[in-house]
Amino acid sequence: MKNFYEKTVESNKIFEGRVVKLRVDRVILPNGKEATREVVEHPGAVAVVALTDKDEIVMVRQFRKPVEETTLEIPAGKLEGGEDPHSCARRELEEETGLKPNRIKLLMEFYTTPGFSDEKMYLFLAEDLEEVPPHRDDDELVEVEKLPLGKAVNWVMQGKINDAKTIIGILAVDCLRSRKGGRGGGAG
Amino acid sequence: MKNFYEKTVESNKIFEGRVVKLRVDRVILPNGKEATREVVEHPGAVAVVALTDKDEIVMVRQFRKPVEETTLEIPAGKLEGGEDPHSCARRELEEETGLKPNRIKLLMEFYTTPGFSDEKMYLFLAEDLEEVPPHRDDDELVEVEKLPLGKAVNWVMQGKINDAKTIIGILAVDCLRSRKGGRGGGAG
Repeated sequence: MKNFYEKTVESNKIFEGRVVKLRVDRVILPNGKEATREVVEHPGAVAVVALTDKDEIVMVRQFRKPVEETTLEIPAGKLEGGEDPHSCARRELEEETGLKPNRIKLLMEFYTTPGFSDEKMYLFLAEDLEEVPPHRDDDELVEVEKLPLGKAVNWVMQGKINDAKTIIGILAVDCLRSRKGGRGGGAG
Repeated sequence: MKNFYEKTVESNKIFEGRVVKLRVDRVILPNGKEATREVVEHPGAVAVVALTDKDEIVMVRQFRKPVEETTLEIPAGKLEGGEDPHSCARRELEEETGLKPNRIKLLMEFYTTPGFSDEKMYLFLAEDLEEVPPHRDDDELVEVEKLPLGKAVNWVMQGKINDAKTIIGILAVDCLRSRKGGRGGGAG
């Protein structure tokens, strides 16, 4: 493998917000040329595929200002100050849906947008869910909805679900299922 | 469905870069409370699952400054000034891999990070590939690699591929295949 490393020769902090930071780096490319890189710094986040005993995925409907749309997503949230992803996943799931998982495991880690941001997403699978009283953040207005896994896969392929981490969560669980033999859901 | 709309009462432009812009909105929530929303504006992007006649996915290795890593991704790039996603997909595939597709179709549209950015990604499936001389951007240093589809799926599930759009592309094509009957790749 070739060496593609870009050495940072200057880094300018532009913005420090509640969620993201922004900086612009001047870098030297492997070919000796210079370039600038705009980097959105993000604390990292978790997302949770929570599966009920009936093989439904627990989803949340919420308004997303950046895209000016109400989206259907799996529960998710950003890591708060050094928080462990596992604890964060349990916390976000409880806060948004009032469900506490008796089994939870890391499915996958990925970068959401490595071209312009360092956000790392930890995707969990939560099962054996127990109801607890929900306690949401003040500015987090969400509606919970349960979607059978087979229908969720169809909705992904039909473009009815348009959030990247949700698409990954649904397709990954479906892929795991079909590897164990036999696709879960069927048409819907 | 409840109304979750957040009305913007003030919008502050913070940064306007070559790739992203950043603004901070003050919004009124449906419950009457105020909140701020940090929004990274992005022109939108395309990504291409290019499949060879041998059922290999054409991937590119490149350095990603935001995550300080050399990643393995499907070819992708941002929309340039009002560009049509189809043309952009053909252009990026040619530029990065020297391959021209005789068949290309839109597989899916999604938001990469609707929590903090408006980036919309158009994911294409390209087939019947023809070799043409590559002509890359100066600051785009990439290495092309072909990965059998079955192996790519395994790498996704094993965490060896960590780019969100690439994970979606691979799992979506695998899902399409298995619906047509019979999973493509096998172990690898």
